[in-house]
Parts: sequence; structure tokens; C-alpha cells
Amino acid sequence: MRPSGRDNDQLREVRITRNYTKHAEGSVLVEFGDTKVLCTASVERGVPRFLRGSGSGWVTAEYGMLPRSTGSRMGREAARGKQGGRTVEIQRLIGRSLRAVMDLDKLGENTITIDCDVIQADGGTRTASITGACVALKDAIDFLKKDKNGAMKGNPFKGMLGAVSVGIYKGQPVLDLDYAEDSKAETDMNVIMTEAGGFVEVQGTAEGETFTQDELNAMLALASKGIKEIVEIQKAALQS
Amino acid sequence: MRPSGRDNDQLREVRITRNYTKHAEGSVLVEFGDTKVLCTASVERGVPRFLRGSGSGWVTAEYGMLPRSTGSRMGREAARGKQGGRTVEIQRLIGRSLRAVMDLDKLGENTITIDCDVIQADGGTRTASITGACVALKDAIDFLKKDKNGAMKGNPFKGMLGAVSVGIYKGQPVLDLDYAEDSKAETDMNVIMTEAGGFVEVQGTAEGETFTQDELNAMLALASKGIKEIVEIQKAALQS
Amino acid sequence: MRPSGRDNDQLREVRITRNYTKHAEGSVLVEFGDTKVLCTASVERGVPRFLRGSGSGWVTAEYGMLPRSTGSRMGREAARGKQGGRTVEIQRLIGRSLRAVMDLDKLGENTITIDCDVIQADGGTRTASITGACVALKDAIDFLKKDKNGAMKGNPFKGMLGAVSVGIYKGQPVLDLDYAEDSKAETDMNVIMTEAGGFVEVQGTAEGETFTQDELNAMLALASKGIKEIVEIQKAALQS
Amino acid sequence: MRPSGRDNDQLREVRITRNYTKHAEGSVLVEFGDTKVLCTASVERGVPRFLRGSGSGWVTAEYGMLPRSTGSRMGREAARGKQGGRTVEIQRLIGRSLRAVMDLDKLGENTITIDCDVIQADGGTRTASITGACVALKDAIDFLKKDKNGAMKGNPFKGMLGAVSVGIYKGQPVLDLDYAEDSKAETDMNVIMTEAGGFVEVQGTAEGETFTQDELNAMLALASKGIKEIVEIQKAALQS
Amino acid sequence: MRPSGRDNDQLREVRITRNYTKHAEGSVLVEFGDTKVLCTASVERGVPRFLRGSGSGWVTAEYGMLPRSTGSRMGREAARGKQGGRTVEIQRLIGRSLRAVMDLDKLGENTITIDCDVIQADGGTRTASITGACVALKDAIDFLKKDKNGAMKGNPFKGMLGAVSVGIYKGQPVLDLDYAEDSKAETDMNVIMTEAGGFVEVQGTAEGETFTQDELNAMLALASKGIKEIVEIQKAALQS
Amino acid sequence: MRPSGRDNDQLREVRITRNYTKHAEGSVLVEFGDTKVLCTASVERGVPRFLRGSGSGWVTAEYGMLPRSTGSRMGREAARGKQGGRTVEIQRLIGRSLRAVMDLDKLGENTITIDCDVIQADGGTRTASITGACVALKDAIDFLKKDKNGAMKGNPFKGMLGAVSVGIYKGQPVLDLDYAEDSKAETDMNVIMTEAGGFVEVQGTAEGETFTQDELNAMLALASKGIKEIVEIQKAALQS
Repeated sequence: MRPSGRDNDQLREVRITRNYTKHAEGSVLVEFGDTKVLCTASVERGVPRFLRGSGSGWVTAEYGMLPRSTGSRMGREAARGKQGGRTVEIQRLIGRSLRAVMDLDKLGENTITIDCDVIQADGGTRTASITGACVALKDAIDFLKKDKNGAMKGNPFKGMLGAVSVGIYKGQPVLDLDYAEDSKAETDMNVIMTEAGGFVEVQGTAEGETFTQDELNAMLALASKGIKEIVEIQKAALQS
Repeated sequence: MRPSGRDNDQLREVRITRNYTKHAEGSVLVEFGDTKVLCTASVERGVPRFLRGSGSGWVTAEYGMLPRSTGSRMGREAARGKQGGRTVEIQRLIGRSLRAVMDLDKLGENTITIDCDVIQADGGTRTASITGACVALKDAIDFLKKDKNGAMKGNPFKGMLGAVSVGIYKGQPVLDLDYAEDSKAETDMNVIMTEAGGFVEVQGTAEGETFTQDELNAMLALASKGIKEIVEIQKAALQS
Repeated sequence: MRPSGRDNDQLREVRITRNYTKHAEGSVLVEFGDTKVLCTASVERGVPRFLRGSGSGWVTAEYGMLPRSTGSRMGREAARGKQGGRTVEIQRLIGRSLRAVMDLDKLGENTITIDCDVIQADGGTRTASITGACVALKDAIDFLKKDKNGAMKGNPFKGMLGAVSVGIYKGQPVLDLDYAEDSKAETDMNVIMTEAGGFVEVQGTAEGETFTQDELNAMLALASKGIKEIVEIQKAALQS
Repeated sequence: MRPSGRDNDQLREVRITRNYTKHAEGSVLVEFGDTKVLCTASVERGVPRFLRGSGSGWVTAEYGMLPRSTGSRMGREAARGKQGGRTVEIQRLIGRSLRAVMDLDKLGENTITIDCDVIQADGGTRTASITGACVALKDAIDFLKKDKNGAMKGNPFKGMLGAVSVGIYKGQPVLDLDYAEDSKAETDMNVIMTEAGGFVEVQGTAEGETFTQDELNAMLALASKGIKEIVEIQKAALQS
Repeated sequence: MRPSGRDNDQLREVRITRNYTKHAEGSVLVEFGDTKVLCTASVERGVPRFLRGSGSGWVTAEYGMLPRSTGSRMGREAARGKQGGRTVEIQRLIGRSLRAVMDLDKLGENTITIDCDVIQADGGTRTASITGACVALKDAIDFLKKDKNGAMKGNPFKGMLGAVSVGIYKGQPVLDLDYAEDSKAETDMNVIMTEAGGFVEVQGTAEGETFTQDELNAMLALASKGIKEIVEIQKAALQS
Repeated sequence: MRPSGRDNDQLREVRITRNYTKHAEGSVLVEFGDTKVLCTASVERGVPRFLRGSGSGWVTAEYGMLPRSTGSRMGREAARGKQGGRTVEIQRLIGRSLRAVMDLDKLGENTITIDCDVIQADGGTRTASITGACVALKDAIDFLKKDKNGAMKGNPFKGMLGAVSVGIYKGQPVLDLDYAEDSKAETDMNVIMTEAGGFVEVQGTAEGETFTQDELNAMLALASKGIKEIVEIQKAALQS
């Protein structure tokens, strides 16, 4: 029995609100239950130095948590003067995953920066971030399509990307862990898949107990089911 | 004629939403038109080193802007590894102002940290922050009152604090400048007053043209009017 | 009765020594009583990136205190690896104020950097800094006038700038607070005015008690009187 | 056909040299072909603040690359003033994995720090690091067993941990990628398992092409085979 | 012929002004010709962590240059966020040298921090700093002697320390190089000796041409002569 | 009697292994007894900004210690976010010394970076570093000679450079101090000489007791003898 009363293969309510703020080329509030992340996509002409003159574009991501998005206040990273290891890990994961659905040559020499800022945390902030970021990225690309100076060379977007966490909680494989589960799970795994069903990232970590091949397969099956549902919600949001 | 069509002495619509997020002891979304700031108050037992053993408490503030709260993306301060001068100035102002309505001895050895994070910026983020922060602070104090272990010694809160910007725009004194005005104003002034009508801070800066004593007096009169209205809105929010 | 025995509207002795060090294009030791600040102006060809190609120049300021300029030793900011919030606030104020008396277009693509380093502190270091910096700035501009390669386009200097602190001390408005007064004042205000009598900055802060409109007006009158005297001293120094 | 001529399920030559340097409580040079990593284990009494008084110990890891361990020189992280995101990710992975084979309560209030410094890189530095680190950790624990003041409470070491990379290279699942393969692989996966065959970490990343469930299973089978061989080599080294 | 017209074995005019600023326990302006350094000694109760409970005291030094003490403006180290290598080298040298004339056990658990801040640079700032610092240190010790709570155990000061630079300039050994010589010298050597004539530090560096044993001996003889004269000036200053 | 049983004028066994790692243009493991330092030389086209367009090349050095190269673990400088003062001092010394045997004009606009990383420390790491670095530098220059694009203008290498420490230990001048001696020596001196017998650097520091001219001369004679032997070993290594 899960703390939230959900079935083992049941997502939290996933909500995606586009145009949440007014300045960004893509601005999405994504909610997985009480986890709320603001994902903005910012388009800038030009690319980082290592790509200049290549004709190719770039997609990168940054991640942050508001200090009181969590149960007890976390020190502000800007005040401490550095981003923590967890932050760095997550933003590298987001950026790498999004690039997996992009044809950077077609993007032209544009950079899209995705900012994922956690307003409220209740587990699964990295998978919610990727889910929302992909929608914001799509909006930014649609903005660039309409922009004559953007100089894209065709459609760089290869399809949606969904992400969800799965885990072993009290010996059972479960889908989309909230904080109450995540903090006690034996295994925690983040899975990122394309809408076509290919794996982009699989990151599973044993916390205390190791996990078996069977448990891994059960978790991947749950993830696959959940991501299909998430992609439907992304597509519905993009059509509204 | 103001870009927004407002009268010279007219505030933007000010909205205050309490309990905006679930973890903080005080959590307020404050909106001055399109300027939106999330103000959270976090209560922690204990005080900074310089107050330990004094029996006195502490109130401090931090301020940040989400990277794409603005028209073009600002670099993330956590990524750059330091807070900019403007950030430091603003968070010192917020903290100092809030302490002006606190009796820190009565607070006991508790620290209340106010985080003001700008979700969307359209001018006046520092005055909106102080306005929202004061409401979040009041909620945090009410939380502490109910907490037997909080060890307050009476009510440390001396009354509401409102803040507003005023300026000289196209030669006219105007109240509550939005970004379109602020970026072109000849003079920009931030005024912070108690609900009893005393001045806590007055910070006026000439941008290009200097200002006269008469202009200063006209701006202060506008600020006084605006802050009275803001305090009414704060009080209404606290009663809802 | 003031600790120093001065009248309420009496400045400390203000001394301005030009050419205090030999390398800088402007080098001024300014003393307000026991407060001693070395203000140097350094001229460099070129401007920061955001002005390149604009034809316009730039004036900026940096501020520092020698570690033992104060009663107890302050940690060296270079050793701690960052400038404190107070330092940042003050140097932004100095730079912004000086730019108010400059026509940056006429300066051409030159940068003048003003360094204000406090040798000995006894209250009022920021107003002494601005007062001395303005004289050093004038010397640097006169240096540029004689320099054929400096490429100024006319006289960029619009007139002198004086600065002084005022406050409410033991219920009385007083002019030019020294440390003994400053550390106990109910209100502390820094006022910066042009020699023509226009306000450039007004920054008043209540420490404990709020202040009224009448007190504000009394303080501004004192400041106006003091700055007139300071401008006379600046002009006398420039003629010697 | 692999660039090295190896079979798809063939490891590089794995060598483990204990007591490589003289000061550390555990000091292991691990070589996977041309990848060479020095892994040292340092024992210190006491634990980080968050564990003080808990009776429990701690194991943590740091990772670094010598500037010219790679084909072109990498900037020294100490000189740049921060560890890069990749470094942070890897050292968190090493520490987390090693803790999976430790009973920290039995370790007592001791901290073991594992340093993995890459002398020469040719792909697979993180899996080589974990493989060598586990042997150095075992040596450090054996050191502590002999130390009366170490105050362990029984044997904290739960068994060996082996790590290896697998991937999809030119459409084929392959074991233990060297740099020539790693830089061109479609998928790269790091697998960490206990000697008992349980998964501790699985981290798979698609580079360009996504991967399927079948490919994932094939890679895990290769990893399982390779790790069994690696554990044998670890055990042989510990007995010599 | 030296640029200054001095004889090869002639010091610049050396001036030592005590009580130069009012807050520090020792405050000395030292001038070697146009090189001017303010040396302050600050006494604090307590010692760094590594000495706590040892009964022994500590002497340490910090060094800085005002940004425009030099011919062209140097970036402010506090603004750049780190002390340069040259600064670190010099302040370690100053601290180490001063400790050579101290009996730290007799100092008791007090820390004396020497700040050497260069007001104007014209070569030889490190040797001028040590020369002035030693006088400021002596004043601080005399302050501690009169302080009942200072808890010294006898006189910790073992005697004066003088420092001077020597070098090979246009093939000739010369004493006390100014900037015009220093920037062109073939060899530059800093020598620090006690008043009893013992060497504390010898640091000689060839710039371009190597130097011979004979040249080394000639330079040391010049240094010895110069330091004798410097110690006389220090003693005269202490008696005035 | 020395702890190692060596004669006062006896070096430890000095071993030089070239091509120790495979990527660098010069890669040397140098051992002075138990002190082991990996010295790599990396060639890059181009020079730092201050030399661009000058036609001249640059040689620079960086130094680091592996965290557990020492008896107790030292914090990793990359993790602390800055290089310590000792590190900075040593790498400046290495770079400056190597430039003394280079004709940088003949090097052309190439930069050679020498990395000296201490694998195991037992006293004398800086002199071992310079000794090994010189051999690595020679190998890098020979690499450049064969490289048509390297654009050297003749042979920039002026001859070998050897370095050794000497000191006063228990009142006796001794050659090549190991850690057991170094930590108790009254005086510690590092001497760097060319193969032609010229001094490049002499750095002597009294630890507790000052030293006399006679002791200085005795130490220099020992150093001269030791460096002659070291240069022979360098040359033998280069011929093997």
C-alpha cells in the first residue's frame, strides 16, 4: 500500500500549463502531484565557442530549487557561491536528454537554454523537469520557425521525450515515487524515453539493497507504461 | 500619459496570495501588475553566531530572480558563482526594512529567513518583495506563536510595512512605476513606510537629471498615498 | 550636545590634498576629521564591452577599507575571496553618483576608474569618498584634455558633486556624523548634490525609530548647507 | 571488429597492484589496458558533522584526472577553482557505490576517503576507479581491524564490488569500451554489481540513437560476465 | 651609473613614521624613497585552531597593493575574488621572517596580524614591508606588555629584523634597487637579516643571466651593509 | 649521522624514467629516493594573450600533490576551490627556473606547459620536480623539432637545469634532505643551477636559528656537487 493510496502502476496527477510566464519563448509549469517545476526555454542567437562556425546549434539546461521548495530550507546556491553536486548532475542529465530529441544541425547557430526551477518539491523533480522542459523546448522551436532571422534549416525537433521515476518500495516495483516513497525506497530509477519508445537514459541506484534483473525489468515495464501516459499529456497540452 | 494608461497616482493591481506553496511557515505570492514575486518565510531555531546567547532573534532576507523572469535571459547567479551587486543591495534592503517592524528581543533565539524569488519581472520587484515579505513574516510569527518550543517572549511584530516606487517620468511625479516607465524615468525612488506612517527607508536616485526639493516632496506624497492602499490590501489578505 | 562638541550644523574639518601619490592621473587624500580616504582616478583607453563602438566613455568606482582602518581589524576582502555587501553597495553608489556629473558621450571611448581606499575610518567614509573622488575625477579629465590621443569631444565634466551624511542623533538633526554619532543615530541619511543644488541621491534609513516628513526636511536642509561648504573646499583645492 | 581486435565479450587486461604508494592505508594501482588509476584509501578518526554522535562511520570518494592523463591537456581543476560537472558526477557515483557494500554502523565513527586519480586515461576511468577503490577500501578496513583505537564493531565490509562499462558499438553490444570505442559508441552504460551478483548502479545513456530493451538486456549480460571476471582478479590481488 | 645617481652601495632615503593611523596597536608608514607601505599590527586574543591550548601565540602577515600604487592600474584582488601568486608569496615571506625574531611561547595565546598595504610602489615593496612590519610588531608587543589581560610570559621579541634588495644591474652589484633598476636587473635578491647579523632569508633569482658565487658574495656584502643602516633607522624611530 | 645513514654530501638514489605515460609530448617519472613526481610536458600552438603576435613562445608550470602522497591526507585543492600558497609558490618557481634555460624567441609562438604531480612525497618535491621537468621539457622540444608545423626558429634549449635541496641538520650542512631531515632542519635551502654551473635560484630559509655566511657557503658547495651528479643522471636518461 503506497502512502498516497495510489496503485503501484499509477502516476500522480500530471498537469502541464503552457505560457506560464510572459517573457520566455517557452514557459511551462509542470506538476507531478505536489511537485511543481517552472521550465522556461530561452532562445539566443549564436552558440558556445566550441560550435562557432559549425552551422550547428546547441541545447543546454540549468536546474535550481527555490530555497524553501523543500521541507526544510536549503541554502541558496547563489549565496554559497557554487552549485552543489546534485544540481550539476541533474542539469547535465536534462541537457543531454533533450539533445537526444534534437537535430542540432537543423537548429542552425541558435542556442536554446532550458531553465528548470523547482517551485515546490515532492519527489521526482528531475523527471518532472525533463517532461516540462520538452514541452517548453517545442514551444521555443515553434517560436524560431516563425522568426525569419532564426535561420533554422528544417525542423530540428525529432519527437517528444517523457521521463518518470520508478523504484522498489517495500519490495514492490512502483511508478512515479513521491517524496514519502522516494526517501524510503530500496531502489530508485529514472527512465527517459522517446515517444517512439526508445530508451534515452536509464539510471538505477540501489539504496541499501541491491536489485535483480527481474526487478529491473519490472521497473522498466512500469516506466514504459507511465511514459506513454505522460507523452499523451504533453501532446494534449501542446494542442490546447 | 503613462504607457499603462494609469493615472499618475494610481497603483497597478496588487494581489497577495497566501499559502502559495506548502512547506514554508509563510508563503506569499505578491503581484504588482505583471511583477510576480514568491516570498517565503522559513523559521529556524537558533541565531547567527553574533547573537548566540543574547536571547534575541534575527530576521534576514535573500533575493533572487529566475533566469528568465526578465525580457532577455540573465545568467544564473548560482552558475556564475556569486550574487551580483544589485542582488546584494536589494536583499540587504529587504532584511533591514523588515527588522524595522520587529522587536527582536521578543522573537527569542529564532531566525526567520525571508526568500524573495522573482518569478516574473515588470518593474518594482524590490518594493513588491518587501510588501509580500511582510505578510509572509506575519504568517511565520503566527506559526511560532502556536509552537510551544518556539519560545517567543510576547508579540515581536510591531505592524505592517508597505513599500512602493515613485519617480519622475516625463517630468511628472508618478506612483508605482512599471518597467516601461522605470527604464525611462528621470528619477526613481523607493519608499518604505510603516502602517503608522513613519518612514523606514527613502532611496531616491537621479538618472540623468537631478531632482528638486519640490519634486522630492511630490514623490513622497504619492508614496504615502500608495502605501496606505497597499497596507489595506495586506491586511485584507491576512484576514482571508 | 554632540560628542565632538560641534554645533548641529557644523561640518568636521574637511581637507583635500591633491597629487597625494605619484602614479595616478588624479590622486586625492580627502579627510573629514579623522576619516581619511585615498581617492585615485585611473584613465584607460577603451571601454567595457557593452559600450564598445558607441563612442561613449565610462566612469566606474571601486571601494575598499584597509583591514585596520577600523577599531577592530576587519578581514581582508581579497583573502576572503569576495567583496562584502556593504562594499558593493558603496562602490555602486560612488560610480552612479559620479556619472551624474559626466557627459559620457563627450568623454569619448575612455574609462576612468575611481578607487576609494579608506586609510582610517571614523564615520562618513562613503560621503568623504564621493567628495574626494569628484576632485580626482576632475584632475583626470584635465589630464585627458592635454592628451592628444585621449580623443575627448569637448568637456565631459558638468560640475562638482558634494556629499555629506546627516542624521537624527538624540532626537536632533545633525550634520556630518562621526563614528560616535553614527553608531547611535536613530536615522542616518546620505545626501549627494551637484554644485547647482540638484539632488543626485538621497538615501535615508531608520535605525530603530522611523522618521517623519519634518525630520526628513530638516535633514535635507542641513545637508544642503553642508554640501555648499564642501563644494567651496573642493573648488579651493582645485585652484591651489 | 573492435579497434583493439578484442572479442565483443572480452575485457582488456585488468591488473591490480596493491601497496603502490607507501603512506595510504590502502593504495592500489588499477589498470584496464592503458587506463591507469591510482586509488588510495585514507582512514581518519571522526565523521562529518551530520553523523557525529551517531556511532556510524562514513565512506566518501574524490576523483581527479592529472592534466595530461588525456590526449590533449585538460585544465587543472585546482587552478580553475572548481571541479567540473563530470568530476562531481563520478565521485558521487564512486562514493555511493562503495557505501553499498559497507555496513557503516559496524565501521564506527571512522571516515574512509577514497581518492581515485587518473594517471593515464583510455576509456572506462570511472569503472576502473570503482574496481580499484574497492580493493583499497578492503585494505583500509584490514588496517583498521588491527588498530585497537579504530573502534570498529565487527566487519563492516559486505563483499567485493566490480564495475565495467558496456555499450553498443557499430550496432553490436560490447564489453569494456576503450577510448576509441567509447568516443563513437551509440550507447554507453556503466554497470556496478556486487560479487553476489546484485545490481548497485546501472547508468545507460544513448548518444545519438536510442536503445531498445533487447539491447539493454544484452549489455547487462555482458556486464555480468565481465564483472565476474573482475571480481576474480580483485580477489587474487587481495590474496597475493 | 644608477638611474637615481646613487652609489652602488647607497640606500634610498629610508623614513619610518610611527602611529601613522590611530586604531592599530602598531601603525608604521615606511618609505624607501618613493616606495611607501603602511604596516599595521593588530592584536587579537586567541590563536588559530592548530595552536589552541598550546599556550603559544602566532604572528601572521597579509600584503596588498592599492590598485593605483603602480604605474598602470592593477585589478583589485578583492574584486577578482582571489589573491595573486605574487601576493601570496610575499605575505608568506613576511610572516615567516617576523616569526624568526619571535619567541611564540612567550607571546602567550595572542595573535598579531601584520597588514602591509602598499600606498605607492617604486621597487622593493617586500623588503620595505618587512622593515616597517618589524617596527609595528615591536609597538604591538609593547602595547601587550602594558595590557594585564594580554597574558604574555616574558618578552617574546628577540631583536630587530631588517630587509633589503640587492641585485646585479648592468653587470654591477647594487644595493636597494628602485623600479627603474629592478625592471632591468640581471639578478634580483632579497635578503633578510637579524640585527645580530644572522641570515633569515636569502632569495636570489636570475633574470636572463645566471649569477656566480662571486656575484652572490658581493650582493650579500652589500645587503649586510644596508641592513645595518636600516636597523639603525628602525631603532631611532622606536626611540623617538 | 643522518636518519637514512647517508653521508652528508650524498644524494638519495635519483631515477629518471622517460615516456612514463603515453599522451604527453614529454613524460618523466623522477624519483629522489621515496619522493616520486610525474612531470609531463604538453605542447600547444599559440601563446598567452600578453605574447600574441610577439613571435615568442612561453613555458609555464603547474604543481600538485595527490591527496594521499603525504603521511596524512591533504584536502584536494580542486575540492577546496583554490590552490594553496605553497602550491602557488612552487609552480612559479618551477616555471621561472625552466624559462632560464630557454630562448623563448626561438621557441616560436608555442606554449609548453609542465605539470609536476607528486605521486609520493618524502621531502624535496620541488627540486625533484624541476629536475624531472627539465628532462620532460627537452623531450617536448625534440618533439617540436620533428613537427613541421611547430615553427620553431632554431634550438630554444640552452642546457640542462638541475635542482637540489641542502640544509643545516643538527648543525651539519647536508645534501638532499628527506622528510625526516627536512622537518627538523635548522635551515632549508633550494638551489637551482644550470649544467654550466651558473646559479638560477637560491632560496634559503632559517627555521628557528639564523644561518651564517660560512654555513651558506658550505651549503652552496654541497648543492654544486649534487647538481653536477644530477645533471649526469639527466643526460644519461636522455641518451637511453
